[in-house]
Amino acid sequence: MKEIMAVIRMGMINKTKKALSLAGFDAITCIKANGRGKKKVNYELIEKLLGGKEVESKEISESISEGHRLIPKRVLLIVVNDEDMQKVVDTIIDVNKTGHPGDGKIFVIPVKDTIRVRTGETSKEAV
Amino acid sequence: MKEIMAVIRMGMINKTKKALSLAGFDAITCIKANGRGKKKVNYELIEKLLGGKEVESKEISESISEGHRLIPKRVLLIVVNDEDMQKVVDTIIDVNKTGHPGDGKIFVIPVKDTIRVRTGETSKEAV
Amino acid sequence: MKEIMAVIRMGMINKTKKALSLAGFDAITCIKANGRGKKKVNYELIEKLLGGKEVESKEISESISEGHRLIPKRVLLIVVNDEDMQKVVDTIIDVNKTGHPGDGKIFVIPVKDTIRVRTGETSKEAV
Repeated sequence: MKEIMAVIRMGMINKTKKALSLAGFDAITCIKANGRGKKKVNYELIEKLLGGKEVESKEISESISEGHRLIPKRVLLIVVNDEDMQKVVDTIIDVNKTGHPGDGKIFVIPVKDTIRVRTGETSKEAV
Repeated sequence: MKEIMAVIRMGMINKTKKALSLAGFDAITCIKANGRGKKKVNYELIEKLLGGKEVESKEISESISEGHRLIPKRVLLIVVNDEDMQKVVDTIIDVNKTGHPGDGKIFVIPVKDTIRVRTGETSKEAV
Repeated sequence: MKEIMAVIRMGMINKTKKALSLAGFDAITCIKANGRGKKKVNYELIEKLLGGKEVESKEISESISEGHRLIPKRVLLIVVNDEDMQKVVDTIIDVNKTGHPGDGKIFVIPVKDTIRVRTGETSKEAV
């Protein structure tokens, strides 16, 4: 069993949800988050540029500080049996791949067990 | 060590928190989420019914589209030593089992280590 | 590969984010949460004190019930290769350690794979 944790763009949640449902994966949990990827932040440069004075241009100020801002994201959690893992990953990539930085990341985390609260079912039956 | 991730109804958080505390598990983290379970979404039917025209009845429109709406949920995270895992799972089921779909699911995820920030304690002492 | 899940004080997010970035870890995801640690809740005492009557003093009422209130927290998720795990943990502790209860906890969770949505890169290249 695996938990697929996907961090995707805020605006992609409905398309992703629909694609996953059509692929046979209806059960999902969605969490609001803020995040950023690997784009390097040059704190030295920012401090040199900002040090001591106000930046008068809002655009310049935003652009040099943009690197360390967190962007609104959505975290999707989908728990599946091992044999379905690749299909879920492919479905998420298919919908979310725009080719631009910020498309997101998918993490695959081992899950030891799943229990359905209503019935007490465990393991494969509960996923 | 295990992380118990429980997705439960929004309104069950206080009862669950109290039951866990009485069972000896005070340390929890609670996150707002939206989710849905396995109830199948018939996108074909929805498209056939909606295709081309507006649905005049709000109730019908809501009922056929309800399947793919995400419902407000709460995600509970509790990290415990292996020997306490079953007790936490049982406590959560006991409080949250109403017998109706939507009662929620519990996922058990392996945890390699836990560190208490204040003291630097690790492993069993930090849980 | 490891997911480092840190539950820290709400007000520490910017300092932690900056310290992680300076240490070479720019990619993070941040989630709002509510939580509490191990401080024991004496429900029996609370019931004895409250049983049958209203508590007239708001301060007393708040102070005896405070134990089971959840405090606003932030959950940080950072996925790193195994060799970087300790550096991330140390950085988070360094920034968040005030010596007072509530400093937070760090959980280390195994990750089987990471996939970058934009490029399809997996494993070490995607982290």
